[in-house]
Amino acid sequence: MIVVMKPGANREEVHWFAGTLEKQGVKIHFSEGMSQTVLGLVGDTSGIDEESLLAHHLVDKVIRVQEPYKRANRLFHPHDTRLAISGSGGTARYIGGGHLGIIAGPCSVENRDQIVGIAMAVKKAGAGFLRGGAFKPRTSPYSFQGLGCEGLDLLLEAKKETGLPIVTELMAIHQLEVFDGVDVIQVGARNMQNFTLLKELGRCRKPILLKRGLAATITEVLMAAEYIMAGGNGQVILCERGIRTFDTFTRNTLDLSAIPALKKQSHLPVIVDPSHATGLAWMVPAMAKAAIAAGADGLIVEVHNNPEAALCDGEQSITPAAFSSLMDVLRKYAAVEGKAV
Amino acid sequence: MIVVMKPGANREEVHWFAGTLEKQGVKIHFSEGMSQTVLGLVGDTSGIDEESLLAHHLVDKVIRVQEPYKRANRLFHPHDTRLAISGSGGTARYIGGGHLGIIAGPCSVENRDQIVGIAMAVKKAGAGFLRGGAFKPRTSPYSFQGLGCEGLDLLLEAKKETGLPIVTELMAIHQLEVFDGVDVIQVGARNMQNFTLLKELGRCRKPILLKRGLAATITEVLMAAEYIMAGGNGQVILCERGIRTFDTFTRNTLDLSAIPALKKQSHLPVIVDPSHATGLAWMVPAMAKAAIAAGADGLIVEVHNNPEAALCDGEQSITPAAFSSLMDVLRKYAAVEGKAV
Amino acid sequence: MIVVMKPGANREEVHWFAGTLEKQGVKIHFSEGMSQTVLGLVGDTSGIDEESLLAHHLVDKVIRVQEPYKRANRLFHPHDTRLAISGSGGTARYIGGGHLGIIAGPCSVENRDQIVGIAMAVKKAGAGFLRGGAFKPRTSPYSFQGLGCEGLDLLLEAKKETGLPIVTELMAIHQLEVFDGVDVIQVGARNMQNFTLLKELGRCRKPILLKRGLAATITEVLMAAEYIMAGGNGQVILCERGIRTFDTFTRNTLDLSAIPALKKQSHLPVIVDPSHATGLAWMVPAMAKAAIAAGADGLIVEVHNNPEAALCDGEQSITPAAFSSLMDVLRKYAAVEGKAV
Amino acid sequence: MIVVMKPGANREEVHWFAGTLEKQGVKIHFSEGMSQTVLGLVGDTSGIDEESLLAHHLVDKVIRVQEPYKRANRLFHPHDTRLAISGSGGTARYIGGGHLGIIAGPCSVENRDQIVGIAMAVKKAGAGFLRGGAFKPRTSPYSFQGLGCEGLDLLLEAKKETGLPIVTELMAIHQLEVFDGVDVIQVGARNMQNFTLLKELGRCRKPILLKRGLAATITEVLMAAEYIMAGGNGQVILCERGIRTFDTFTRNTLDLSAIPALKKQSHLPVIVDPSHATGLAWMVPAMAKAAIAAGADGLIVEVHNNPEAALCDGEQSITPAAFSSLMDVLRKYAAVEGKAV
Repeated sequence: MIVVMKPGANREEVHWFAGTLEKQGVKIHFSEGMSQTVLGLVGDTSGIDEESLLAHHLVDKVIRVQEPYKRANRLFHPHDTRLAISGSGGTARYIGGGHLGIIAGPCSVENRDQIVGIAMAVKKAGAGFLRGGAFKPRTSPYSFQGLGCEGLDLLLEAKKETGLPIVTELMAIHQLEVFDGVDVIQVGARNMQNFTLLKELGRCRKPILLKRGLAATITEVLMAAEYIMAGGNGQVILCERGIRTFDTFTRNTLDLSAIPALKKQSHLPVIVDPSHATGLAWMVPAMAKAAIAAGADGLIVEVHNNPEAALCDGEQSITPAAFSSLMDVLRKYAAVEGKAV
Repeated sequence: MIVVMKPGANREEVHWFAGTLEKQGVKIHFSEGMSQTVLGLVGDTSGIDEESLLAHHLVDKVIRVQEPYKRANRLFHPHDTRLAISGSGGTARYIGGGHLGIIAGPCSVENRDQIVGIAMAVKKAGAGFLRGGAFKPRTSPYSFQGLGCEGLDLLLEAKKETGLPIVTELMAIHQLEVFDGVDVIQVGARNMQNFTLLKELGRCRKPILLKRGLAATITEVLMAAEYIMAGGNGQVILCERGIRTFDTFTRNTLDLSAIPALKKQSHLPVIVDPSHATGLAWMVPAMAKAAIAAGADGLIVEVHNNPEAALCDGEQSITPAAFSSLMDVLRKYAAVEGKAV
Repeated sequence: MIVVMKPGANREEVHWFAGTLEKQGVKIHFSEGMSQTVLGLVGDTSGIDEESLLAHHLVDKVIRVQEPYKRANRLFHPHDTRLAISGSGGTARYIGGGHLGIIAGPCSVENRDQIVGIAMAVKKAGAGFLRGGAFKPRTSPYSFQGLGCEGLDLLLEAKKETGLPIVTELMAIHQLEVFDGVDVIQVGARNMQNFTLLKELGRCRKPILLKRGLAATITEVLMAAEYIMAGGNGQVILCERGIRTFDTFTRNTLDLSAIPALKKQSHLPVIVDPSHATGLAWMVPAMAKAAIAAGADGLIVEVHNNPEAALCDGEQSITPAAFSSLMDVLRKYAAVEGKAV
Repeated sequence: MIVVMKPGANREEVHWFAGTLEKQGVKIHFSEGMSQTVLGLVGDTSGIDEESLLAHHLVDKVIRVQEPYKRANRLFHPHDTRLAISGSGGTARYIGGGHLGIIAGPCSVENRDQIVGIAMAVKKAGAGFLRGGAFKPRTSPYSFQGLGCEGLDLLLEAKKETGLPIVTELMAIHQLEVFDGVDVIQVGARNMQNFTLLKELGRCRKPILLKRGLAATITEVLMAAEYIMAGGNGQVILCERGIRTFDTFTRNTLDLSAIPALKKQSHLPVIVDPSHATGLAWMVPAMAKAAIAAGADGLIVEVHNNPEAALCDGEQSITPAAFSSLMDVLRKYAAVEGKAV
């Protein structure tokens, strides 16, 4: 960390200030020849708060040289993390480290036929995981809020029928009690900085699919992952799902450069949700292919047997047939990229 | 709600589709003379999902004529809502309906002397409420997370000493158990769409200070308020605290046009947090004045006796002396606007 | 175009208002059964100003059903436009309609050896066009502003040596006098809404490479193209080059969903500039591949023989060797997508 | 300027690199004790390109300590710039340095009666300047593009009748020939980085009203001003007119924190355009007051005698009567702020 003092800052005061920093466990290297004195802080600066430094009347600028995250940082963990996740049959599916994890299924679980039918269809097409919402975060209190525990039960039946591991969203800590059979817990974009929830998930031993917040920077995504990892749970999958920008053609703006960015900074697997990012079913295949081309470790795609009658997000769901065609192309892309799907 | 069908949509299919809508309790008015048939939906459309409609292959565009919020909507409640809030002494302070509510205090409660000292100072300067964080949402798991329950106790002592009602942030439902003595519960920007939390707050009978999310539209802010109000708690204060934009000079971009926007759409009081919005103490007075000029019903301002040593957000805190000077000017602005402070 | 009148609007006044619209050459279809009267405007509404309508005290909302662009609109020109562009040797290169146009070269022309050397290298690697800046738009008046006319002469020499058509930026109308030998005229992002310039380019008969503005919506990009096309020049290539968002990891945020969006709305070819979009050389290959996967009709890539010594934008330039490796992979992607490169 | 070298950068290479920097006229101060060597560049660094430095394989980060603008920089010109501008009668009106400049008038000049009538009305209400568009930048080539030279003539008549200095937009260099009688030349938001135009305006001797681009940072606004000032024209007025964000309630998002930001960094006067920023006439008074409260040196407000029939931007124009009421309140605000209006 580099601290630039204000022009004309009193030399004695600067040394006193440096002394207070040293008490926080870092060494200070002075550079006094310039019009502005520059302090170089050597050591573990992850506990030092930039904003507190900036509040000091002597300080002009603060620059972090090392990123504030540690466990998520590729610097200390150079190899890609590969997660192995088993469904009911015992077969492990992989995400990361050269393996594409393809998660597919409906926005919401609606009934037994729907979820089991879709599960069988996406499995046949080549998906490795089944997604489906039981607890749904909806903008309006008057919209369908999901089947809740009944939806979870139906997901478990679909898991039993197909062997696919299931991925579903957790909205509050108390729901953990009923998440026993869930294989991957999803944290939604709106909860990415629900720190109480993240801490709790750090204590559990299931993989967490962490969706990027609508206005979250790359650093903030990794700090959210760090919350979970700091609690001892290293199984985190990052998910780019579109950010909010001025553009309204798509529901959100899919930021595919986040894939190389996150993968450079971190060893964690990064997947992409083209369905929520665009909100437009016809755009999903193009964006799914682009995600794999950009280096993503997988996808989470909304598939619905009857998008027009879906209880939520029908506009962005593709049919099982369209998903199957997409998988055919994705296998070619995976081959070009030398990845297993 | 207006539904524009695709050009060339089959007439019979359109009528069949209209029939499915009527089953949801609305009346349909056809306009078939154009190249595209237009359906006008008359009645309560708040339960009809735009996205489900858009998923239908016959539908081209959907336009909401009525806003999706009801209890927060000024249309059904034309007069300004004025909240009366008492601290320990029984004197009511008001926010809204011509009354400016000025909330001041430190980012975090640090110790008894600090919080009681600041409380006395801001009361003397003219603040009507004391703010202070006990449970702190921090970007990094390695930063100071607040004193928790001990912080709440200290806040209650400050309330006892000064009579000021206290405003503090709730981060998770289970914390409600210890919020008995709190007068106004704050929901942070990062939790604005934590729907489980909002629903729970709809069941409690305390005023809720709801901060706008970093990427929340005007409609989303009002839908978050609607979650609380739908549960039966009509005491909601909206708070503009800066949105995330491309600009990085300030921490966030204070959107003062949100004040007239929210007040036109809703009867709820709207206050402004110039401290978090700008992140810069020297900019707080200018933005506080501008907020009142733009029609805000109050402010929430960070005040710290020693910003340089603050455990968080020192960069944006003003001193009690600066706050006192600010209050002097704000009284002049309130006089011009014909408001009580 | 659909015009929703305010609730309670006087019937007579609405009819008088409708009459004024009919004088602008459209037919009006009334829908009066609802609480709000809805007018459907049938005919050519491209000359009717939404904002003027919204200024009227009777009008509540205005919704465009048809897009405001005509010549750029795929609706009236369903087939992909394919441009054929020849350099000095007479061989035509194609962009659009199944042909990938790959444009490569340095940010700035610096000297004869540099530009001819790079031209030969990128041609060998498979590029179809040479780019290079002679007139440079720079944020600072104190930065290198390009070699100007001398740079143009050097580009023409490189064209003569390699036969590659050249692509270079025009910053002002008067420069057209010296652009005779230029094959494709580039309009930079900052000039995308320099309407005087666009009109003038509508009168010339060279292909125009139109870069998306940093904050331009999909509709605005197409309206800028429409300015050129309305003047009679239909040879427009659209270029996505990153938009400005809150995210600062990359210089801009590459919006790859703009590719399917623009191609759905328009028949014009769409290419991508991964160099300016990311500002990071190491990210260029991933984003170049993703662009092709998302359906782009080509790329414009910065290649420099010695990025570290480049007079501008070295950070985002790749070496000829890296470009050559990238081309090898892109050929595989083109094969998967069934496109010629 | 501070240059942080990569961890493990070779010591000899770093010294060789530092030598190349010294040849650009700066002194280098080394700080080698840390894991990463830090170079402090002392002297005039405005000609050194951050991006070129970042392209070097040894460089990790670059931090500007001094801003890249000089003539616009308050550091070298601590006192507020006050511009004195005379109309036809010889009376000077002031903007900056404690004087509020109020510019009012229609979006477009439409005819003699309209512009003279509005000029007289806004003068009576207390405006110091008349605005009106003759050359209009319009998103659509099919929209009304302004009366051009005829419009300019009408503006001059209004100036003759009222004595008010006139403010109007220049869209291209060649229009300068007919701008003789214009008192303040406006550069529109879309031309803020039309560098050829800015350079030309640096050579003229009229005050320039420079509007902030839709996606321009504070630094970019000041660099655009620097282009004009570097040419020898120091009479620049900066204008905040709303930035583009995700929010669509208002046409743009008025960034009032830009006022204190620009005024801290620069000595130039800063005014605000609440009409274009919000696009909503009913919101103009609230935002105009807020701008003055936030420290603006003036306003540019759209006033139209018949907004409903305006040829452009009627939705955001207020009537002369509304403007007159607004001026009454603004005088009270000016009094509180100790400014002359």
